[in-house]
Amino acid sequence: MPTCEDGFFEYLSSIDCSDVEVYAIPEGYVVFPKVPLMRIEGPVAVIQLLETPFLSLVNYASLVTTNAARHRLVAGKSKNLLEFGLRRAQGPDGGISASRYSYMGGFDATSNVAAGRLFGIPIRGTHSHAFVSSFMGLDEITDKALTSSDGSSKCEDFVSLVQNWLIKIQDSSSLRGTFGETSQSELAAFTSYALAFPNSFLALVDTYDVMRSGVPNFCAVALALNDMGYKAVGIRLDSGDLAYLSVETRKFFHVIEKDFGVVGFGKMNITASNDLNEETIDALNKQGHEVDAFGIGTYLVTCYAQAALGCVFKLVEINKQPRIKLSEDVTKVSIPCKKKCYRLYGKEGYPLVDIMTGEDEPGPKIGERLLCRHPFIESKRAYVVPQHVEELLRCYWPGNSSTSRQELPSLHETRSRCIQHLERMRPDHMRRLNPTPYKVSVSAKLYDFIHFLWLNEAPVGELQ
Amino acid sequence: MPTCEDGFFEYLSSIDCSDVEVYAIPEGYVVFPKVPLMRIEGPVAVIQLLETPFLSLVNYASLVTTNAARHRLVAGKSKNLLEFGLRRAQGPDGGISASRYSYMGGFDATSNVAAGRLFGIPIRGTHSHAFVSSFMGLDEITDKALTSSDGSSKCEDFVSLVQNWLIKIQDSSSLRGTFGETSQSELAAFTSYALAFPNSFLALVDTYDVMRSGVPNFCAVALALNDMGYKAVGIRLDSGDLAYLSVETRKFFHVIEKDFGVVGFGKMNITASNDLNEETIDALNKQGHEVDAFGIGTYLVTCYAQAALGCVFKLVEINKQPRIKLSEDVTKVSIPCKKKCYRLYGKEGYPLVDIMTGEDEPGPKIGERLLCRHPFIESKRAYVVPQHVEELLRCYWPGNSSTSRQELPSLHETRSRCIQHLERMRPDHMRRLNPTPYKVSVSAKLYDFIHFLWLNEAPVGELQ
Repeated sequence: MPTCEDGFFEYLSSIDCSDVEVYAIPEGYVVFPKVPLMRIEGPVAVIQLLETPFLSLVNYASLVTTNAARHRLVAGKSKNLLEFGLRRAQGPDGGISASRYSYMGGFDATSNVAAGRLFGIPIRGTHSHAFVSSFMGLDEITDKALTSSDGSSKCEDFVSLVQNWLIKIQDSSSLRGTFGETSQSELAAFTSYALAFPNSFLALVDTYDVMRSGVPNFCAVALALNDMGYKAVGIRLDSGDLAYLSVETRKFFHVIEKDFGVVGFGKMNITASNDLNEETIDALNKQGHEVDAFGIGTYLVTCYAQAALGCVFKLVEINKQPRIKLSEDVTKVSIPCKKKCYRLYGKEGYPLVDIMTGEDEPGPKIGERLLCRHPFIESKRAYVVPQHVEELLRCYWPGNSSTSRQELPSLHETRSRCIQHLERMRPDHMRRLNPTPYKVSVSAKLYDFIHFLWLNEAPVGELQ
Repeated sequence: MPTCEDGFFEYLSSIDCSDVEVYAIPEGYVVFPKVPLMRIEGPVAVIQLLETPFLSLVNYASLVTTNAARHRLVAGKSKNLLEFGLRRAQGPDGGISASRYSYMGGFDATSNVAAGRLFGIPIRGTHSHAFVSSFMGLDEITDKALTSSDGSSKCEDFVSLVQNWLIKIQDSSSLRGTFGETSQSELAAFTSYALAFPNSFLALVDTYDVMRSGVPNFCAVALALNDMGYKAVGIRLDSGDLAYLSVETRKFFHVIEKDFGVVGFGKMNITASNDLNEETIDALNKQGHEVDAFGIGTYLVTCYAQAALGCVFKLVEINKQPRIKLSEDVTKVSIPCKKKCYRLYGKEGYPLVDIMTGEDEPGPKIGERLLCRHPFIESKRAYVVPQHVEELLRCYWPGNSSTSRQELPSLHETRSRCIQHLERMRPDHMRRLNPTPYKVSVSAKLYDFIHFLWLNEAPVGELQ
C-alpha cells in the first residue's frame, strides 16, 4: 500500500536549494551553547529536509574537533599529537571524519592514509606488531646490502653490522647485565625495516619486552644506521607503564650517546600509545615522562568521554512570526526569532560575551555601553563596553539572494584559525577543572520578546 | 621526496584476494572474548592490507548490535524498539551502520529512511516539533474536507469536527478542569497531519504542555478521525517525566474510552523518547509506566556506555610456524596457531563452553569427555561431555581454494538468528548485574603449546 501520494515524489524531484540561505559561524571558531551554529532560511519543507544532513554533518565534526583541542590542551604545545583511531571509529567512514577534525582541533598527523590523500593531513605511523612477529630470525634477510646516506660507500652485510653493535652494547660497561639475549625475531624485523627505510626507522619496541629486547635491538640497528650516515627516528611504546618505560628508555639512549659518542642519540624520539586520553596524559604529566609524541586512537575518535554532541535544529520564525519551543527543562527552551549574533571583545583582547539580537536591531558598537542579559534568568545582566565587535553568522550559501558568499578556507587555514581562537580565550574559561562559564546573552529587546512569547504560549499550571 | 619506490605501487595494483581465505563466525552469533571472530589466511602483505578494513567493519557493527540486544533485554520482548539516532551517529554515514545493526540486534524499526530503503528495515517516526510550531492557528488549514475510511461519506469541515470534539472533552464530567485552553498552533498541526495521513495519525504531544495541551488536542483529533472510520495510532512523549506522563496519558485515554464509548481508545499507543538508554528504561520499568514503544537514539547509536569495541588483528602463524604476541597484560597475550573453534552444548540445550584447538586436532565428539582448559591459568580446567558440537568458523571467502563458501543470509535472517542465539544462552550469563562469565577454553594440546612458546619467547626477568 502506498504511504504517500505520487505527487510527493514529483515535488521532491522538483525542489532545490536556490531559495535557501545558509549562515554559519566560521568553522574553527570557539562556540558556546545557545548561540546558533547555523541559521537556515527558506521554504519550510525544503529546510526540514536539510535538518538531518546538517545535524549529522555538524554534530560529530564539532565533537571530535573539540575533543582533539582538549587533548592538545592537556598534552601541551610542544608534543606531537598523532591520531591513530581508524580501526575504532564508528561506521565504515567514521575514521575519515575523525582524522579530518582531529587535525582541525590541533593534532599534527594521522595514521589514516586515505585522510592524508583526501585532505593533505601529514601521515605518521609505525610498523605493526605482526610485522615483528612475522620474522623468525636474521637468516630470513636475503638482501643485506645498504648504501650509505651520501652514496659514497656500501655496506655489503648490514646484518653483521647490526649484530656487532648489539654485542658492543651488551658489553658496554654501563649497560652490562641490564639485558641478556634479545628476541631474534624482533632484531630481524627491525633490521629488515631499516634496510627498506633507512631514513625513517621508527621501531615498535614492545612486542616481546621493552627494556630487555626492544630498546637494545633498536639501538643496535640505529647505531648501524648511524655508521652509514642515517639518523634513526625513534621508538614507539604501545603497552605497559608508559611513564616508567619512557624514562628508562631515555636513560638508555643517553648512555648510548655517552658511551659511543653519538651526539644527539639521547634526544631520540619516543612515541607512546595505548588507550591514551586526557586523563592518562594528565597523569603522565604529573608523574613525569620522556614521551615526545602521543598516538591517540579510541578515546579521541569515538569521543569516549562524551560520545555525542546534542545539537538540535529549531524553528525560530515562520512567515515573519517568531516561534518558540517550550520545555519542562529550561535549557531546552529555544530562543525565538531570526537573530544576529555577535562576539564582544574586551580591551585585553579576550572575548567577553556573545550576544544575540533580533535581526533588525542595530548591532553593538565599539566603545558604546550595551546591556547584555541572560536569556532566561531575569537577575543576570551586565553592561559591556566592547573594544572590538565580531559578527558571528556569515553567509556560506546565498541561494538566489544577492548576499555575498564567504569563501571556504582550506583545512590548514581552518586549523590555524581554530588554534588561534582557542589561544585567544581567557585562560580561566579553558581550565579543565571548574572553568569559568563563558557568558552568552541576549539584547534587552530580545529578552523582553522571549518572555512575552513564553507567557503567551505556555498554558498556566495549577499546583494540586 | 618519494617515500617509497614506484615498484610498490605497481605491486599494489597487481594484487587481489584470490590467494586469501576468510573464515568467520556467522553474523548474529553470540561471541566471547579470545575466540577469533575471523580467521584470515593468505600472503602476509595482502592480509596486512585487510587488517584495517576488517577491523573497521567488525568493531562498530558488533558493538552496536550488542548494544541493541542489551536494550532489548532490558525493555522486554513485548515493547516496540525504534532506532532514532541518525542525527547523533558519528560520521556522515555512521547512522546507516547504526540502523542496520540495531535492527540485527533486535530493534523493530528505524527513523532512518535511507536505511529502510537500503536494507528493508521497517520505518517509523513522527512529525517534528518544528512541524507543530510552524502553525499559528486553525485558519491556516484551507483544505478541510476528509472522506471517510470506507469512502461512503465526506466531512466537508473536519476542522469544525475536531473543534467540537475538543469542547466535548473539555466539558466531560470526568475531565472538566484538568485543562483549559489548548495551544491552537498545536491543534492546527495535529488536524493538518490527520487530514494528510488519516490512517497513521501519531502525534508528538510535548511541544507546549503534554497534559494541558498535547493530549487533549490529540484526543480531539483522534475522536474526529474515529467518526470518519479511522483509527489514530497514538502519541509520542519526548520530554519530561516519562513514567508519570505515560501513566497520566493512559488514564486520560481510558476516560475518553469510557465517557465517549470508543472501544479500544484506552489501548492507544504511547511511544516515549528523550535520551533513553538501558538505565533509564530499567528505572522506568521499576517505577511503572504505560509506554508501548521506546524511541532510542544517542545512547544506542554512539554506544555511549562504551563507545568502542577493542577487536584486534593478530598474526598467529606464518609459514606453518606459530607466532605469539606477548604483553605485560595477560589479557593481551594472543593465542598462537591456526585454530579451529567449537561451541559445546549441554543436555539442556544451553551452550556450555567454547573451545579452541589446533587446526590438525580431531574435533570434539558428541558424548565424549573432553578436557577444556583456561588458556592461561593452569588450575582452571574442566571435563565436558558435549551433547551437541558446533564448529564456529565457516568459510565466507574461499579465494581460489576448493573450500565451499557459506551463503550470506539476508539481514532479516541474521536478525532472527541473533535473537534466537541470545535466547539460547543460559539466563545467568545474560543478567545485567554480575553475570556468570561464559567459559572460553583451549584443548590440552593447545594449552601446552601456548606455554611452551611463551616460555621460549619471553626474556627472563630479574627482580632488582
